[in-house]
Amino acid sequence: MDYSDVLAAAGRIDGHVLRTPVLEISAGVFFKLELLQHSGSFKVRGAFNRILSAGELPPSGVIAASGGNHGLAVAYAARSLGVRAEIFVPEVTSPVKVAGLAALGAHVTQTGAIYSEAAEAAAKRAAETGALAVHAYDQAEVVAGQGTTGLEIVEQTGGVDTVVVAVGGGGFAAGITLGTSGGVPGGTPGGAQGRAPGAVHEAGPRIVAVEPERIPTLHEALRAGEPVPVEVGGVAADALGATRLGAIPFEILSSPRVRSVLVSDEAIIEARRTLWARHRVAAEPAGATAYAALLAGAYTPAPGERVAVVLCGSNTDPATLTTA
Amino acid sequence: MDYSDVLAAAGRIDGHVLRTPVLEISAGVFFKLELLQHSGSFKVRGAFNRILSAGELPPSGVIAASGGNHGLAVAYAARSLGVRAEIFVPEVTSPVKVAGLAALGAHVTQTGAIYSEAAEAAAKRAAETGALAVHAYDQAEVVAGQGTTGLEIVEQTGGVDTVVVAVGGGGFAAGITLGTSGGVPGGTPGGAQGRAPGAVHEAGPRIVAVEPERIPTLHEALRAGEPVPVEVGGVAADALGATRLGAIPFEILSSPRVRSVLVSDEAIIEARRTLWARHRVAAEPAGATAYAALLAGAYTPAPGERVAVVLCGSNTDPATLTTA
Repeated sequence: MDYSDVLAAAGRIDGHVLRTPVLEISAGVFFKLELLQHSGSFKVRGAFNRILSAGELPPSGVIAASGGNHGLAVAYAARSLGVRAEIFVPEVTSPVKVAGLAALGAHVTQTGAIYSEAAEAAAKRAAETGALAVHAYDQAEVVAGQGTTGLEIVEQTGGVDTVVVAVGGGGFAAGITLGTSGGVPGGTPGGAQGRAPGAVHEAGPRIVAVEPERIPTLHEALRAGEPVPVEVGGVAADALGATRLGAIPFEILSSPRVRSVLVSDEAIIEARRTLWARHRVAAEPAGATAYAALLAGAYTPAPGERVAVVLCGSNTDPATLTTA
Repeated sequence: MDYSDVLAAAGRIDGHVLRTPVLEISAGVFFKLELLQHSGSFKVRGAFNRILSAGELPPSGVIAASGGNHGLAVAYAARSLGVRAEIFVPEVTSPVKVAGLAALGAHVTQTGAIYSEAAEAAAKRAAETGALAVHAYDQAEVVAGQGTTGLEIVEQTGGVDTVVVAVGGGGFAAGITLGTSGGVPGGTPGGAQGRAPGAVHEAGPRIVAVEPERIPTLHEALRAGEPVPVEVGGVAADALGATRLGAIPFEILSSPRVRSVLVSDEAIIEARRTLWARHRVAAEPAGATAYAALLAGAYTPAPGERVAVVLCGSNTDPATLTTA
């Protein structure tokens, strides 16, 4: 996979997803407001790219397992394209997300304690029905779709030194790593255009990949030299709760551009509270995880460093923005 | 007043306020997300412009009366500039706003049932202390500051046919009427540059000025040929609750470009709910009032008409986004 896959995805999903806005909150520090995306998270980008890449779909439509956001995205894309959707979610999925799935007309099965168990059930069901499986993070079309966020960050900011992004299964961070490797359009050299495919994502901004301490899939994968299973828990488990990093994301995120950092659940909660109180942005815990790295000092930009912080999900009960 | 006052204001407040983002929610329909502004509303634009225009300030600092948002903005600007702020709010002001004022370090007096009574008390106090009065809407510097939102709308959208905006005392809509009269930068002719001052705001997009049925200050002023007192009530009274339109806004809004429309409280509540459920934008009732005009059909754009909807305030208890 390389930058060209992300460009192709951008063409494919154009008009189906929002070009979410960027807000410069202080000089050179940008919020990418991807939590204003259709279905409340970036996940529709990958979902549309996967479904639109598939050609004719089986009558059984599409199927996905999800902690919630990916399911909402697949259900949204399926409804928008007039396709049947079956979604498997675990018990950890928040009531807000389950209600949202039903409202989108998806066939929902809630089973298993965490994402990986729901994913097993979905795989079994997909084998029976022949539905097109849309993976939450470990599929090339999905990674390329998420990467279109990176293209927009480069265009909308005019280029940054660093992108700060949350990691669950790794599809979003991997996509952004690819999508930001093309350089500023018509701008600085050092981008991917014209390079040999394969190594292109070695150019581009630093990617600060932020995980909750209680779900360190990338952190442990980088230590072990391969994706390994981790315990899943904490406040962001319904969105970042993959048991292990995806194989495709691992390959892309094993780049010298990527720095893995961890944040506590307390830092995530505090970042979420601050996003509302100071910036009037309503985020779910996973959506505030990248910002937590800055607030808690897990990553401290140098003076003058241009930083984009990706706020990626807002599927939450707003009543908890000031209390939880 | 004319377009040049808004340009001057933009230079004066640059770096003090956010350039709030624009989101294209469907082809040619834009949300101007002014509710992500510092202090949770557009009001800081006028507050900074008024205070920064004043030269040296008295030791008693600045004073303002407000339904809440203007007070928050003056308190924010004063803290940011190291100036003392005294704010008068009426009983109708929501607890969220009163708490916000205290958190910003302002000296707060809650008195009178509605805005006009708090304004009387503030005027009396200002005469005693000599503090610089920052009016909520009827001051040239305030109107010019709010108008910078209009400049940004034109730049960020590349030009629209129509701007939909809520009206209370009229300062924001009047400012936007001026601020959008300059044409697209480097773009289409027909803008204000090079014209004789005074008549410049007659060029520019249509301004759809939206008011709650229960606070029709502009609607009644246009009917009477001058600002007249109206009853104040309903869900948006703590932000749009002026008893009569300002004299300066009236002069500017008495333009063939301006169309006055009314929406019910029910339409405002429904628009606020929809903004959260569908777009993940957290607005207070006044902040959703402009959008209510589109949803409820009080204004229906023609096919292909390019429309900017200004979402102007988010000082609200988020727990009420799904219930109220």
